[in-house]
Amino acid sequence: MRVRHKPWADEYLQENAHIALENSYSYRGKWKEVYSNQHPIHVEIGSGKGQFIAGMSTQHPSVNFIGIEREKSIIVDAVKKVKEAEVPNARLLLVDAKDLRDLFADNEVEQIYLNFSDPWPKNRHEKRRLTYPAMLEQYKAVLKPNGRLVMKTDNRGLFEYSLVSFSQFGCTLEDVSVHLHNDDDPLNVMTEYEEKFSSRGYPIYRCVVQFPF
Amino acid sequence: MRVRHKPWADEYLQENAHIALENSYSYRGKWKEVYSNQHPIHVEIGSGKGQFIAGMSTQHPSVNFIGIEREKSIIVDAVKKVKEAEVPNARLLLVDAKDLRDLFADNEVEQIYLNFSDPWPKNRHEKRRLTYPAMLEQYKAVLKPNGRLVMKTDNRGLFEYSLVSFSQFGCTLEDVSVHLHNDDDPLNVMTEYEEKFSSRGYPIYRCVVQFPF
Repeated sequence: MRVRHKPWADEYLQENAHIALENSYSYRGKWKEVYSNQHPIHVEIGSGKGQFIAGMSTQHPSVNFIGIEREKSIIVDAVKKVKEAEVPNARLLLVDAKDLRDLFADNEVEQIYLNFSDPWPKNRHEKRRLTYPAMLEQYKAVLKPNGRLVMKTDNRGLFEYSLVSFSQFGCTLEDVSVHLHNDDDPLNVMTEYEEKFSSRGYPIYRCVVQFPF
Repeated sequence: MRVRHKPWADEYLQENAHIALENSYSYRGKWKEVYSNQHPIHVEIGSGKGQFIAGMSTQHPSVNFIGIEREKSIIVDAVKKVKEAEVPNARLLLVDAKDLRDLFADNEVEQIYLNFSDPWPKNRHEKRRLTYPAMLEQYKAVLKPNGRLVMKTDNRGLFEYSLVSFSQFGCTLEDVSVHLHNDDDPLNVMTEYEEKFSSRGYPIYRCVVQFPF
């Protein structure tokens, strides 16, 4: 995604620190307290401009959503979307997801979403892909037993790589779609990118995997 | 596939009984004797007009191929293709694959191919799909430990169903392609159907799975 410098971003995030939480690592193991309820925690890695998390938190009031995004100039848009949605169950973290275990305690998360993650197509960048085995280890740690990961991408190579990676890690596929928007799923919340890409008729790939104990 | 009645088929098959073996069930556990060598056995289920088995047996002289096809009027074309290829390592069986364990002893097969199998799209026909769990049980029995199954299809629904079915059965995905002929695989032997379908730019789906012990 193109990143535009936004000099007002720091100030905007401070003003909205009830959504874009500060001190990201201080909530580890205490996420239920942030929301003052016992609802399950769902985490989106790479929230981008926030259409998905804003839509999902509106559609699922009994789930607490946490969006992670490392680009300051992008997360401000996500904060705006969440504000406009006026939902109490969404928070955003300006942080890199590579240290997920520092953000969440073991078994603290019920579901993880990867939406249109960077495909890192070059072999030498394999380790940066969010479905590289070292990341799956982190997902496994923070997810509850039988926790799920839901992945959507338009990138064929990343999808093929990820299916094999999940399978060899011991995950079980629960659902696969190789052309999501031919399916009629009225509950599918689209990201900005997905909306644009899909409207051109390109295939969107999706899978749901269950992690091993 | 459209089936045309061919009154000369019986005679043709008898004349070529060195390729289209009679008494299909009599070779169980003795397939190495048929070929008089110790080469691995690969089985194609649903050989159709035989382009795949003729091409594969030419390309892989150190593998013994067995093609299964239940339509008499279709298998005659496969016999013709194998004759023309002049290969010593291909045989065909006019039989239904649903009793695979009666055709092969446990651990007798190294690899299985499913090429463009009937998708049986209706839910009530799920049991007829070649990747229904009861069939996977048969594949597991006849395959050697760590044996592989290679599946190609143009049918999105069958592919998605099969990936989930394999995974939930405990198979491990070794390779997945959701658009085979965008990949540059010079060793891919196409079926007749694949050639026609692929030339129109439609996606071909492929996966390689390893069976659990």
